[in-house]
Amino acid sequence: MRQRPLGDDGDPIGHLVRLLTRLPGVGEKSARRIAHHVLSAEIDFVQTLGDAIATLPERVRRCVECGNYTSFDRCAVCADPRRGGDVLCVVWRPSEVDAIERSRSFQGRYHVLHTLLDPLGGVGPAEFPLDALVTRVRDEQVREVILATPPTVEGEATSLYVAEALRAQGVSVSRIASGVPHGGDLEFTDPITLGRALEGRRTL
Amino acid sequence: MRQRPLGDDGDPIGHLVRLLTRLPGVGEKSARRIAHHVLSAEIDFVQTLGDAIATLPERVRRCVECGNYTSFDRCAVCADPRRGGDVLCVVWRPSEVDAIERSRSFQGRYHVLHTLLDPLGGVGPAEFPLDALVTRVRDEQVREVILATPPTVEGEATSLYVAEALRAQGVSVSRIASGVPHGGDLEFTDPITLGRALEGRRTL
Repeated sequence: MRQRPLGDDGDPIGHLVRLLTRLPGVGEKSARRIAHHVLSAEIDFVQTLGDAIATLPERVRRCVECGNYTSFDRCAVCADPRRGGDVLCVVWRPSEVDAIERSRSFQGRYHVLHTLLDPLGGVGPAEFPLDALVTRVRDEQVREVILATPPTVEGEATSLYVAEALRAQGVSVSRIASGVPHGGDLEFTDPITLGRALEGRRTL
Repeated sequence: MRQRPLGDDGDPIGHLVRLLTRLPGVGEKSARRIAHHVLSAEIDFVQTLGDAIATLPERVRRCVECGNYTSFDRCAVCADPRRGGDVLCVVWRPSEVDAIERSRSFQGRYHVLHTLLDPLGGVGPAEFPLDALVTRVRDEQVREVILATPPTVEGEATSLYVAEALRAQGVSVSRIASGVPHGGDLEFTDPITLGRALEGRRTL
């Protein structure tokens, strides 16, 4: 039994429920279901799950090349000699590397920013990690940069800011398309997305 | 850093995702979101959450009176002198005690079976914990027993079996109502539920 006080006030189930509701997509009801499942599940599973959560941050580091999550020095993409280094896809977070990898539509390498330009949120040009990207593009003789930051205010600002800096280096810079998602219903698509879908139309 | 091998095969994120999907209501997508949240969250929160899961089973025991979950000898309901001991509500699991408590519609005490009569699943009359309930009803001079096992095949079988044993003791036995849930749409209610709602109709 571990000795660290958990501050559960004699109510370990309620304590766990409160912690679980701080996770994304977990409401009070799901948290209660999970807590009761933990109490009826096999003890080996429960301890392995608890340890897998508690030790995840110390078992995962950032790839020395691109900033993606990995257990080694280099992430699976950077360690793969078949992945071309002359096309770089710039993303906000490692979860977006995963999403693009699942789409199987990109064969180059990534650059993970871990932050977006957000002056109101305390990340101005001085805090934004532009230098690492610029240096990498120059040193690795990158030919094309695809900006895949999210289509939000901060993502667009980041994209514009990075594009300007890289164009000065003579590298080709593009931005992923924004439009109506596959399977989406135009009736329920927001006006900004519809506007972008029209603006980004392509000749057939 | 803990030394117990976690069997993550050098892929701690994928390992955690696989463990998380074994929890109720957590699919692959939610599991990925949670894993990435764990990697960007404060380390204190992550370790507290991991410990709260891993140590929950050893911090929670069964109430010596009713079998509900508690950190003490007696659960909050059994420890409350205002709760009447002459009406007993029989439920399958502790999560159902929570649900009924949240409805604030019962002031008696509980009896948690932790199992249902399920001969095909290996719980026949010999395995079913009937004696503890019968003894409790006799020793505590229980006047009324409300059977709140779920309206499923096993729950109904349990209810019938328990009712028969208790009626022989001269105690009043009732079954919770089954019917169309509050806010439910009759059009989308299954035929068995509708049949029960009609059968259980009450004169106004």
